[in-house]
Amino acid sequence: MTKAEIQFIRSLDDKRAREEAGLFVAEGEKLVRELLASDFRVAKVYCTQGGFGDMTERATVKDMERASRLKTPTDCLALVEIPRRTFVPASLKGRLSLALDGVQNPGNMGTIIRLADWFGIRDVVCSADSADCFNPKVVQATMGAITRVSVHYGDLETILAAASLPVYGTFLEGENIYDASLSSEGVIVLGSEGRGISGGVGKLVTHKLFIPPYPSGSRGAESLNVATAAAIVCSEFRRR
Amino acid sequence: MTKAEIQFIRSLDDKRAREEAGLFVAEGEKLVRELLASDFRVAKVYCTQGGFGDMTERATVKDMERASRLKTPTDCLALVEIPRRTFVPASLKGRLSLALDGVQNPGNMGTIIRLADWFGIRDVVCSADSADCFNPKVVQATMGAITRVSVHYGDLETILAAASLPVYGTFLEGENIYDASLSSEGVIVLGSEGRGISGGVGKLVTHKLFIPPYPSGSRGAESLNVATAAAIVCSEFRRR
Repeated sequence: MTKAEIQFIRSLDDKRAREEAGLFVAEGEKLVRELLASDFRVAKVYCTQGGFGDMTERATVKDMERASRLKTPTDCLALVEIPRRTFVPASLKGRLSLALDGVQNPGNMGTIIRLADWFGIRDVVCSADSADCFNPKVVQATMGAITRVSVHYGDLETILAAASLPVYGTFLEGENIYDASLSSEGVIVLGSEGRGISGGVGKLVTHKLFIPPYPSGSRGAESLNVATAAAIVCSEFRRR
Repeated sequence: MTKAEIQFIRSLDDKRAREEAGLFVAEGEKLVRELLASDFRVAKVYCTQGGFGDMTERATVKDMERASRLKTPTDCLALVEIPRRTFVPASLKGRLSLALDGVQNPGNMGTIIRLADWFGIRDVVCSADSADCFNPKVVQATMGAITRVSVHYGDLETILAAASLPVYGTFLEGENIYDASLSSEGVIVLGSEGRGISGGVGKLVTHKLFIPPYPSGSRGAESLNVATAAAIVCSEFRRR
């Protein structure tokens, strides 16, 4: 790796730089292999050892340490093209999808994409103020699920209105999720870490759900982390 | 705040420094208020505004920025005594508890403690190689749950053997959790992010469970984040 290459890779931490270059960074041999086998177009692969044939460029361990954003730099780092996907709200029909309304923490977003993959959810629709799914921390937290789940950005109110599907969201005044009837098509909205589901999106929620604490009406617990709440809601939908 | 105080607060990022001083750091007005109302002994409170009467020491916004570990420093930072708790495995009888077998990521650990609080789980037992629950990132991720859930450290194999309770853990070859019979007392073991449940602890698991992906036996998803898996398992225990 040249100094300029290392600098370029590091610059891709920044969303604007990623958009200008049309590239994002993925690290780790397993993740790079999954990306190569997917629809994504891998522009470059750097490896300190092993590799993927002709397209592999050599890097020293020192170079990788400088370029990597991981605490323990791995052997392999790829530059991958950001896909240009077209998204039509009508494509959500007949299936279960997730909508992220301002989820800001990259770790939470990555964990939710990984969860979607586990539960066979193909699409995650995000408001513009949500974290960017090609932020390196999101990419790593998905543990490869980013290759199988499509993430879209847009105005959630417009998308939800256009999809005309059941819309689920968790609210303190919602129905006990364990007793609620849950359909096999619809959109599950997850709110931001700080303020939950926004007012405009909340108005489009057709089914308000509540995850009851235990014992019900108990002590001091006020809320669940958005990724853990998502896990419980998705599990309830898929259990039935 | 003096320069020495700022340096001391920052030094408490380190586990050894926390143990020597017997103190940990908590940030945010809400968290500090919860700690003051709890069994924890708060040694010092610094605030840039407002505060908690006599015990409040003034800090400038600049000082707080220097001392704080948060991206957006809050108005309030407390130094809190690390409690000296005695723990007897027999005390887990008749209740549901969690055991963390090498959970390393502070965000995951904090999220799991918050989850335990929501589901009325009072005790979380951790192996010595798990993250330290008084790491500032853990404390913040618990969102106050650290004041209501007791976290213990010790040799998990010894503790689980001594408790003689049903022990649950998730394994690929486990029973579908949605069909399994789940008792109201027992210990749910959660493995590390990298290697799952360790061999020795795995031998003490009396009920192997599995969270089935959807559709069953599907595509590429390999695993769930430990905190989301914990959420699904706890929800299943409490739903019934």
